[in-house]
Amino acid sequence: MILKRIESEGLAHNSYFLSDGSEAIVVDPRRDCLLYAKLAEQECVKIKYILETHRNEDYVIGSIELQNMTDADIVHSKELPFKYGEHRIGDGDTFIVGDLKIEALWTPGHTDDSICYVVRNPNESSEPMIVFTGDTLFAGDVGRTDLYGLDAHQGQAEKLYQSLHEKILPLGDHLQIYPAHGSGSVCGHDISDREFSTIGYERKANPMLKLDKEAFVKRSVAQRMLVPPYFRMMEDYNLNGAPLLCEIPVPKPLDVFEFEKEMKSPDTVVIDAREPGAFAGSFIPYSLNIWLEGLSIFPGWVLNSGQQILFVTERKEDMRMVKAYLWRIGYNNIHGYLCSGIQGWRNAGKPIEHLDTLSADMLKRKLDGGRMILLDVRQPSEWEEGYIAGAEKVYVGHLPAKMEALPRDRPIASICSVGNRGSLGASILRKSGFKEVYNVLGGMESWKSLGYPIEK
Amino acid sequence: MILKRIESEGLAHNSYFLSDGSEAIVVDPRRDCLLYAKLAEQECVKIKYILETHRNEDYVIGSIELQNMTDADIVHSKELPFKYGEHRIGDGDTFIVGDLKIEALWTPGHTDDSICYVVRNPNESSEPMIVFTGDTLFAGDVGRTDLYGLDAHQGQAEKLYQSLHEKILPLGDHLQIYPAHGSGSVCGHDISDREFSTIGYERKANPMLKLDKEAFVKRSVAQRMLVPPYFRMMEDYNLNGAPLLCEIPVPKPLDVFEFEKEMKSPDTVVIDAREPGAFAGSFIPYSLNIWLEGLSIFPGWVLNSGQQILFVTERKEDMRMVKAYLWRIGYNNIHGYLCSGIQGWRNAGKPIEHLDTLSADMLKRKLDGGRMILLDVRQPSEWEEGYIAGAEKVYVGHLPAKMEALPRDRPIASICSVGNRGSLGASILRKSGFKEVYNVLGGMESWKSLGYPIEK
Amino acid sequence: MILKRIESEGLAHNSYFLSDGSEAIVVDPRRDCLLYAKLAEQECVKIKYILETHRNEDYVIGSIELQNMTDADIVHSKELPFKYGEHRIGDGDTFIVGDLKIEALWTPGHTDDSICYVVRNPNESSEPMIVFTGDTLFAGDVGRTDLYGLDAHQGQAEKLYQSLHEKILPLGDHLQIYPAHGSGSVCGHDISDREFSTIGYERKANPMLKLDKEAFVKRSVAQRMLVPPYFRMMEDYNLNGAPLLCEIPVPKPLDVFEFEKEMKSPDTVVIDAREPGAFAGSFIPYSLNIWLEGLSIFPGWVLNSGQQILFVTERKEDMRMVKAYLWRIGYNNIHGYLCSGIQGWRNAGKPIEHLDTLSADMLKRKLDGGRMILLDVRQPSEWEEGYIAGAEKVYVGHLPAKMEALPRDRPIASICSVGNRGSLGASILRKSGFKEVYNVLGGMESWKSLGYPIEK
Amino acid sequence: MILKRIESEGLAHNSYFLSDGSEAIVVDPRRDCLLYAKLAEQECVKIKYILETHRNEDYVIGSIELQNMTDADIVHSKELPFKYGEHRIGDGDTFIVGDLKIEALWTPGHTDDSICYVVRNPNESSEPMIVFTGDTLFAGDVGRTDLYGLDAHQGQAEKLYQSLHEKILPLGDHLQIYPAHGSGSVCGHDISDREFSTIGYERKANPMLKLDKEAFVKRSVAQRMLVPPYFRMMEDYNLNGAPLLCEIPVPKPLDVFEFEKEMKSPDTVVIDAREPGAFAGSFIPYSLNIWLEGLSIFPGWVLNSGQQILFVTERKEDMRMVKAYLWRIGYNNIHGYLCSGIQGWRNAGKPIEHLDTLSADMLKRKLDGGRMILLDVRQPSEWEEGYIAGAEKVYVGHLPAKMEALPRDRPIASICSVGNRGSLGASILRKSGFKEVYNVLGGMESWKSLGYPIEK
Repeated sequence: MILKRIESEGLAHNSYFLSDGSEAIVVDPRRDCLLYAKLAEQECVKIKYILETHRNEDYVIGSIELQNMTDADIVHSKELPFKYGEHRIGDGDTFIVGDLKIEALWTPGHTDDSICYVVRNPNESSEPMIVFTGDTLFAGDVGRTDLYGLDAHQGQAEKLYQSLHEKILPLGDHLQIYPAHGSGSVCGHDISDREFSTIGYERKANPMLKLDKEAFVKRSVAQRMLVPPYFRMMEDYNLNGAPLLCEIPVPKPLDVFEFEKEMKSPDTVVIDAREPGAFAGSFIPYSLNIWLEGLSIFPGWVLNSGQQILFVTERKEDMRMVKAYLWRIGYNNIHGYLCSGIQGWRNAGKPIEHLDTLSADMLKRKLDGGRMILLDVRQPSEWEEGYIAGAEKVYVGHLPAKMEALPRDRPIASICSVGNRGSLGASILRKSGFKEVYNVLGGMESWKSLGYPIEK
Repeated sequence: MILKRIESEGLAHNSYFLSDGSEAIVVDPRRDCLLYAKLAEQECVKIKYILETHRNEDYVIGSIELQNMTDADIVHSKELPFKYGEHRIGDGDTFIVGDLKIEALWTPGHTDDSICYVVRNPNESSEPMIVFTGDTLFAGDVGRTDLYGLDAHQGQAEKLYQSLHEKILPLGDHLQIYPAHGSGSVCGHDISDREFSTIGYERKANPMLKLDKEAFVKRSVAQRMLVPPYFRMMEDYNLNGAPLLCEIPVPKPLDVFEFEKEMKSPDTVVIDAREPGAFAGSFIPYSLNIWLEGLSIFPGWVLNSGQQILFVTERKEDMRMVKAYLWRIGYNNIHGYLCSGIQGWRNAGKPIEHLDTLSADMLKRKLDGGRMILLDVRQPSEWEEGYIAGAEKVYVGHLPAKMEALPRDRPIASICSVGNRGSLGASILRKSGFKEVYNVLGGMESWKSLGYPIEK
Repeated sequence: MILKRIESEGLAHNSYFLSDGSEAIVVDPRRDCLLYAKLAEQECVKIKYILETHRNEDYVIGSIELQNMTDADIVHSKELPFKYGEHRIGDGDTFIVGDLKIEALWTPGHTDDSICYVVRNPNESSEPMIVFTGDTLFAGDVGRTDLYGLDAHQGQAEKLYQSLHEKILPLGDHLQIYPAHGSGSVCGHDISDREFSTIGYERKANPMLKLDKEAFVKRSVAQRMLVPPYFRMMEDYNLNGAPLLCEIPVPKPLDVFEFEKEMKSPDTVVIDAREPGAFAGSFIPYSLNIWLEGLSIFPGWVLNSGQQILFVTERKEDMRMVKAYLWRIGYNNIHGYLCSGIQGWRNAGKPIEHLDTLSADMLKRKLDGGRMILLDVRQPSEWEEGYIAGAEKVYVGHLPAKMEALPRDRPIASICSVGNRGSLGASILRKSGFKEVYNVLGGMESWKSLGYPIEK
Repeated sequence: MILKRIESEGLAHNSYFLSDGSEAIVVDPRRDCLLYAKLAEQECVKIKYILETHRNEDYVIGSIELQNMTDADIVHSKELPFKYGEHRIGDGDTFIVGDLKIEALWTPGHTDDSICYVVRNPNESSEPMIVFTGDTLFAGDVGRTDLYGLDAHQGQAEKLYQSLHEKILPLGDHLQIYPAHGSGSVCGHDISDREFSTIGYERKANPMLKLDKEAFVKRSVAQRMLVPPYFRMMEDYNLNGAPLLCEIPVPKPLDVFEFEKEMKSPDTVVIDAREPGAFAGSFIPYSLNIWLEGLSIFPGWVLNSGQQILFVTERKEDMRMVKAYLWRIGYNNIHGYLCSGIQGWRNAGKPIEHLDTLSADMLKRKLDGGRMILLDVRQPSEWEEGYIAGAEKVYVGHLPAKMEALPRDRPIASICSVGNRGSLGASILRKSGFKEVYNVLGGMESWKSLGYPIEK
C-alpha cells in the first residue's frame, strides 16, 4: 500500500495518492496534475476515484483535469450543486478501492459540504486506519470558520466543534490524519509545520482540541483572518469547473521591444518575480514585485482575473514555477516574459528605477530621525505578536485600498517579516506615484535579531 | 518539521531523515548516502546525529560514509564494542536536536543491542510524537529473533515480547511508528506492505501483538527463516566499519574481447542481470541469472566476498542500480560489465546458450508425463502456503549445497513465485553441468491463475 | 552564431537550428519539435523561418507543428501545390535572417521540388559559408532518384547530376555541407557515418562525385532500393499537412485484462518492442517483434495506417521512444501498452510462446543437416555483399506478400545482419501459422566472425 | 564517426571527442572531465589518446585527470619538458586511432610547442579531412603571440605567419577546422562567434589571413592584450601536473554564523556571484562581486592562489558552476558558501551594504554635473572602439594596482560594457574604503542604445 503526499508549495496545500496495489484514489488533486497519472502508471494501478473534501476556495481543484487524463470518477458532497462529477455523497456512504473500504464522514464547519474520508482495510482489521481530514482538522490547528461571513461565523464554529468531537475524535487515537493543508496555508490560523500527525497526538497537542465548546467557538470567532479577493473566482471554478490547462495560452518569451510594446497594452500588469534585493537594485518602472514563492498567493490580492500579465524573472527556468503557481490559483492569462531578463532591458537603455532599502539598523536611525512613516504590512496575527512602536498596521493586500490616506510628502518604509511582502508593498506605492519609499530588507526578523524593542 | 523515509529498494530497508528546521538526524543510513547530505543542504540544516537502531546484519550501514561527508556524530548502543562512533548509549539516554528531544529505549530481542528512538517536541506536548522502531516493530509484524542461533531463539523471543509490551506499546496508541524495514525484507517474517502505521493500529491489526507471551514465543520459535551467508560479513562491517565507497574501484565498461579475457581470470563469476525471459533467450555459458531487483539480496547467497564479479545487463544505465545494490550488501569487487550488451557478444560470434522455459500449462503437461523433477526453490514460508504435488523443496540459496543429490539424467524444472528465483536456480544447475533444465516463467502465480491444484 | 544538428535517431534524419544571435531558422524540423522552440527560448531568439528542403517521403515534417508554437513562416518550393506554408520559392530567391543572407538553389533530382539553402554572412565575406543540402548531397553519397518510379529513374538521375555539378560543387570546396540524412537512412544508398563534411572533401572522397555523367546515371539507375508502403502516407501528410500531436490520443497503460480485451478488437496488432533475445524467451501469441530502434522504420512496412496498435515493451519508459518513433512516421493510433510488461502477463497465466533461436554455429550444423530453409531477410544491397550458400533472398518488408510460396512442413530460419530484422521475420511467420521457425541471433555478423563461408 | 565539441563556457575553450566507432581521442580536455569518459562509455569505445595542442596558459588541462579514469595515453610536444605524459611528438609524427590516421604538424607561433593535429581516413581518401588547430587558427582570428613577452613578440608573430601559411593553409580549402577557442577567449584578439569553419572560408573571411607577412606581424605586434596573473600558475600546472579533483576539498554549506566566523579567518575573501543588480541591492561588506559567468576568468585577476574563498550565490545550485569555473582555472581552495543566501544573512540582522547604481541617463546627468570621476574598466581593445568623453581608462584587472592614484573625496562611477565588470570594479573600490562609488547598470551598451556621444 502506497500513500504519497503531494504538496503544492507556497499554497501549503496537500493532495494525496493512495494505492492498495490494484486501484488508487487521489484526494483533492491540484490543477497541474500530470504527476498523479504518472504515479498510477508507475505503480500500474488505475485511479478509480478522485475525492474532493469540499469545494476549495484557495486553489483551482484539478479533478476535471485529472479525469480528462484517467477516466476516474469524481466524488464530492451532495450539499452543493456541482456542475461536474459522478458521485454526490453524504454521511456514511462507502466505496471500495481494491482491498480498501472508504467511508465518507460529513463534517460541516469549515464549509457546509466538508467531507472527511476514513480508510479501512477489512483484511487487516475492522478498525479504521487513516483519515483524510480536508480543512476540518490540521496538525496543530482546525479549519477556519469565517468563510460564510461574520454573521455566520459563530454558527460555523459550532458545527466544526461538533464535527471534530462527534465525528473525528471518536475514530480513535491511533488514526493517522492527512489534512489538506500544512503550515503557511491561509485556510488555517496557525497550522503546525509538522508534516504528519495522528488523532491521538492532536488530542494532546492541538490547542484547539483542548478547549470546551464555548471556548472553542469564542476563540474561533475572535480570530481575524484574511479573505483574498480571488477566493470568489475559486469558488466559481470549483463549483462549475475551470478550463483545461491545454486550453490556456502558453506564456511567450519576449524580447525587450516586444515586452515594451506589450507593457503598453490596456489592462496589463508587469510582475517582477525576483527576490526583493535584486528588485531593489533595478526594476522596470510600474512593475510589482512578488517573489517566486509569493506567487502562490499574492496575485490573488493584487491582480484582477482579466488582466494581461507580463513577467520579469531572475532566470528563464523560473517560468515553470510562475506558471504552476498562477495557474493553480486561476490566473490563466500570463502573456509572456522578458526573455533576456532585466539585464537585456538595462543594456537596451530602457528606463530602470531602483528602490531604496533599509537594514534594520538603518531603519532604527531613520525612525529616530522622526519624519519617516513605517507601514507594517504583515497579517494582523503577526502584528499581534509584536510590532515597532509608531508603526501603522496595513496588510499588504489591503494597501491599494488604503493608500489614499497616506501622505505623499514624507518618506515611507514598508516592513514585513523578512522583506518580501515589504517589497510588494513598496512596489505598490511606487507604482502609485509615491516618491520616497523604502523596503526593510530582513524585516522584523532582523530587527529582533538585533535586539531592538518591540511592542505588543 | 520534515521527516523523509528513504527506502533502499530490494532490501526493503528504511532509513529516515528528520529535521526540525535547524538541526537534523539520520536514522540507519544506507551506504550510498549522498542523498542525506543533499537533503540537509537543501534544508540548510546540519545533521547533528546519525542514529543506529542496532548492528544491522542485512546491509552495510552508511554511518561512517555519511560522517565523512558531514561531521555528524554517530550514536549506537553501549551493548556492543563498536570500533567507530562517538556515543554509546543505553536505556533512557536523551539528546537534543533543535527543538526536539530524543530518548533511547533499550529494546533487546531482535538483537541485544537494539534501540528504539522516541521523539518529543516539548514545545507542543510532553507526550511522545513518533518512534523509530528499528527491527523491533514493523507494520504487521515484529523483528525476527533467531539470529543468535536456535538455542538462543526462545530467550530472544521472550526479550522481544517484553520490549514490545513494556517499552513500546505503553508509549500510547497515538504514536506513528517508523520501522527499519518494509514488506519483502528478510528481517521480518510477514511484514505488511503498508508504508505507515501507529502503535494503536498495530495493537489492533498486528497478529503478533494479539498474542500472549507464551503464544508469541511459540510462534516466533516456530518460524523457520533463512540466514544468508553474507550476514556474517555485514556483522563484521557494521561492528568494525566498512571501506569508504571512494576507495572502491569503479566498474569498467568492457568490450567483448576484454570481457571474454576477464571471464577466464581465476575466481571470477559472471552475473547476468536481465529478466529471466531475456536470459532464457540467450546467455553467456556459465553465467548466473539474478534479475535487477534480486541483486539486493541474492548475491549474498551465491557469491563469495572475494570473487571478481562481471556483469551483463540489459542496458548500460542498469549499472547504476547494480553498483548500489551490490555495494549496499558489501560486495565491493565489481570489475566491469559487457558494454555492448549480449547483442555485441552474439554479433561477435561468441558462444551463447539458451535456457528452456515452461509456462504453467506446459509444466502441467510435462509433469503429467512423469519423468520431470520439479524443484520448488521458494522459501519455506512460501512453500507452506501451497505447492505442486510431487515438487521437491530446495530453497534457491541452498541449491549449490544440495545439487549433489539430484539426478543428472532427468529433466529438471525450477519454479518459484513468478520466475526470477527459478531462473537463478536453473542457471546454477546449468553452470554445474546439468543439461536438461527448465525455468517456469510466471511460476506459482501463473499456476494458481490457471486454477491448477496445489497442496498444503 | 550557433548551428545545432538535431538527429531523429533511427530515421537517421537531420534537422538544423541556425541562429545568428538575433533570429533563427529551422531546416526540416521533425514532428516532435518542442526542442526547437526550447533552443530558441534558450538563446532568446525568434525563429523567423522554417525551411523545407523538399516534400519529405520518409517522415512527417514538423513545420506546421512548430509554426503552431512559434509563429514562424514556412518556406518551401513553388514546384508543388502545398496546402500550407507562407512562402513558395524558386531558384535564387533570398531572405534575410539577422545578419545572415540565405539563398535558395533549386536542385531537382531526388525530387522535383528539392531546394538547397546557401548561407552567407555579408559582414564577413561575400563568399558562401555553409549549405543545407537536403537529400541532394550526403556525406559519401547522393540522394536516391527512383522515387518517381523506374520509368522516370534515368531522368531524375540526370537532373541530380546536373544539380550537383552545376549548382552545388561550384559553390566552392570550403563550404560545410549539412545534409538531411546520415548513415542508415533509406533516402541514400550508402551514406557515410561521418557526421560532418565539406564540398571539397566530398569532391575528393564521395564515390558518386567522381563519376562522369554517364557513369553517374548508370550507377544510380542500377541501384535497387526499397520503397516502404508508408511513403505514400508521408507524401500526403507533407503536401497537405498532418494532424497536430495534441490532437492525437495518448497511449494508455493497460493492465493484463484490459490488454487482453483490446487485443481482440478488430484490426488490432500487438507490437513487441523488446530485443529479439527477450522476445524469443517469451512472447504473446500473434505479436510482431520490432526492436526499439527498428520502430523508426519497420512499422512502415508491416502496419496499415488505420490499425489500432498495442505495445509490449521492456520498460515503461520505453513508451517515450515508441511514441516519438511512430508519430514521426505518421502512425497516430497507438492505443496503449501492457503496463506490467510481459512479466505481468506471464504471472497471470496468460498464454505465452517462445521462439527458437540459433547461434551461427548452431545454424551451420542445422544447414548441414539439409532440411532447413534459410530466409535472408536483409536488403538486396546487403545480400550483394555476401550471403550463405543456399539462402533465399526475401526482404523482411516483402515477407508478408511472399509467404504463400514457402513450405509449411519444413523448418525455416530467418537471418539478417545481427538478429533484429530476423526476429521480425520470424514473428511474421509465426503469426501466419508457421510452426517451426528460428531466428539467428547474431545474424550474418556472427556468421562472419566465426569465419564461415559466404558467397557473392 | 562522431565528433563532439565540448565547450567550457566562460573560458570559451573547446575540447573535442572524436571516435571512429572503435577507438577515440580527446583533444585538450578540460579539468572536470567525467563527460569524456561518459561519451566513450555511451559509444562503447576506448579513449586511446589524449592529445594536447600545447601547454595551455588559460586553464588547467584535464589530461591527467582523464587518464586517471581511462588509462588513455597522453600526447604532447617534445619541445617542452613535461613531467607527465607518454608520447612526446614532433612534426610529421603519426598515430592510428581505429580507421583514422592522425598526423602532428608542428606550428610554433602562439607558443613554441604548438601542435596541430590533421585527421585522415585512408579508407575514404588520402586527403586530410579535418584539423584540430589549437591556438594557431581560430574562426576569424589567429592565436596571440605576446605570451613570451614584448621582446619576443615580433619573432613569435613571424613564426605564426609561417606556421599558418606553410603548414595549415596548404592542407586545402576543404578541411574543417576545430580550434581550441571560440568568441570571448583571452587567447585571441577578436575571435568570431561562428562555431564552425573551414580552411577555405578562413582564407576568404579571416582578416589576419588576408595580410602579407609584414602587415601580419605589424598588426600582431600592435595588439595590446592582457595577461592575467593566474597564467603563471596554469603554466606550472600544465607542465608539471595539477592535483586530482578528488584530492580537493568539497565546498561546505555554511550557516550565517559559520560563514561570519570563516570570513574573519586570515587571508579569506568573500566572492558574491550574484548579478550586479542583486549585488547592488544588498551585499556583505568587503565582498567582491563577480557574476557567475565571470568566474571563468576574473578570479584569475583578483585572487591569490593561496586565499581561502567563501561564496555568496543567488541559489544553492549555482555552486556547481562556481566549482567548475574556479577549478578549471586552478583555484582549489573554495571553503564554503552561505547556504541560506543573502536573505538568511539579512534576516539574522547581519550588516549589509548597498551599492549605488546608475542607468546611462542618470550617468549622463551626473557627468554633466562635473564632479564625478568615470572609470572605464573595459579592455583596451574595447576602449578603442569608443568611450565616453572624460572617462579614465583603467582595466578592472589592473584596478587594485592603480587605486592609489584615485581621489577618495569625489564620487567615482565604474563602467564596462553592460555592468558586470563595472560591478566588480565598484566592489574593489568599496572594499578598499572608497565611499561614494557607483556602478553603471547597462554600461556602454545602454549608453549607446540611448544615442549618447562617444569618442574614439
